[in-house]
Amino acid sequence: MKASLRGIKALTFDVFGTVVDWRGSLIEEGKRLGRRKRIKADWAAFADAWRGGYRPAMDRVRRGELAWTNIDGLHRIILDGLLPRFGLDALTEAEKHHLNRAWHRLAPWKEAVAGLKRLKKKYVIATLSNGNVALLTNMAKHGGLPWDCVLSAELFGHYKPDPESYQGAARLLGLAPEEVLMVAAHKDDLDGAARAGLRTAFVQRPLEFGDAAKKDVAFEPRFDVNAKDFVDLARKLGC
Amino acid sequence: MKASLRGIKALTFDVFGTVVDWRGSLIEEGKRLGRRKRIKADWAAFADAWRGGYRPAMDRVRRGELAWTNIDGLHRIILDGLLPRFGLDALTEAEKHHLNRAWHRLAPWKEAVAGLKRLKKKYVIATLSNGNVALLTNMAKHGGLPWDCVLSAELFGHYKPDPESYQGAARLLGLAPEEVLMVAAHKDDLDGAARAGLRTAFVQRPLEFGDAAKKDVAFEPRFDVNAKDFVDLARKLGC
Repeated sequence: MKASLRGIKALTFDVFGTVVDWRGSLIEEGKRLGRRKRIKADWAAFADAWRGGYRPAMDRVRRGELAWTNIDGLHRIILDGLLPRFGLDALTEAEKHHLNRAWHRLAPWKEAVAGLKRLKKKYVIATLSNGNVALLTNMAKHGGLPWDCVLSAELFGHYKPDPESYQGAARLLGLAPEEVLMVAAHKDDLDGAARAGLRTAFVQRPLEFGDAAKKDVAFEPRFDVNAKDFVDLARKLGC
Repeated sequence: MKASLRGIKALTFDVFGTVVDWRGSLIEEGKRLGRRKRIKADWAAFADAWRGGYRPAMDRVRRGELAWTNIDGLHRIILDGLLPRFGLDALTEAEKHHLNRAWHRLAPWKEAVAGLKRLKKKYVIATLSNGNVALLTNMAKHGGLPWDCVLSAELFGHYKPDPESYQGAARLLGLAPEEVLMVAAHKDDLDGAARAGLRTAFVQRPLEFGDAAKKDVAFEPRFDVNAKDFVDLARKLGC
């Protein structure tokens, strides 16, 4: 293990795209719904449009234009805007609610659980996601994610990459920021963590957006660790 | 299962005394410390005095006389006051810090983990303790407690039995208060939960204070469930 990685006591994980395959899971949810309701739609486009609304909605909260709204709430606002375009306006309220909770049922990338189990033997492992606590808790139960602790931007009233979320996570874990390693497949998340004093681990997830050409997965010397996946990360952290 | 227990989706657990045996664990910590440092003391009296300072300290926070201080902080204030009486004033700062974190290493009652694993198959199981998040997270790792989610009064800035802590837990779990069952070995905690709209499960822990005569463990019809221990609770909840 590199000397620069000594003293780390906890790992905090971005979740959407880093731990779970939101795109593949939403496409599968769409296909199942389509078969059940006899709706034909481009479910990949649906997944991309739903996810595409997420950052702008969150940024409205971060700029103070929208009062604090958790991710279940933001997902629902975005979904409601997409229903006509994908032939979903005839869904009942219960069906819309169930569809919105597809984000509670996202499936882990295939080596994620095995990697987390190895990392958990040596470190405290926690989520640090913009997803709300209920979403992350249900997702962990659904996918068998063995978190020691579920932390969320919701607890701090600040979405990543605001520094309050990273610093709040370290504080709740009873640790100094430099004792916490933020793990993410997104470079802006890691840059936010680094500004808040955390250490950083980049994990490639080349297929997050479906087509590997759409994602920058180059390793970067500015991160403390660069890893292919969680099993590779465990190896590089000496687990 | 009784009809009055339908619709419950999550169980929140008091921890000190309900899940873990704080008294027996602190006595063992004291004995180990005594052997290592050649200190003779009445470790049962030490455990009782330390725990005895907890409620008054917390009530000072609840009344606003003391700014928000987490339980690690309150435990340390109480411990510092007890050091001379138990021959512990010569401990180094590192040793005092380690002793204060004895609360992170409390052992579960003997059937607790098995009971939680059964309950977890059917329900979301979460802590709802006045202990801080780091304490609860480390304790779970130490004792193998399989929580889906670690919730604490620390997240709400209000100690139990203030209603904000119970209502905050339900809100973070994305549930209505009546969908949450509070599990505790302390009747005042359950009465607080009931006032906040949660359902209630009493669990006897007759040896919490060492001598069974010191504790009121009578079942009460005002609680939704009364159980001997977590395995009995699992059975009564149909798990």
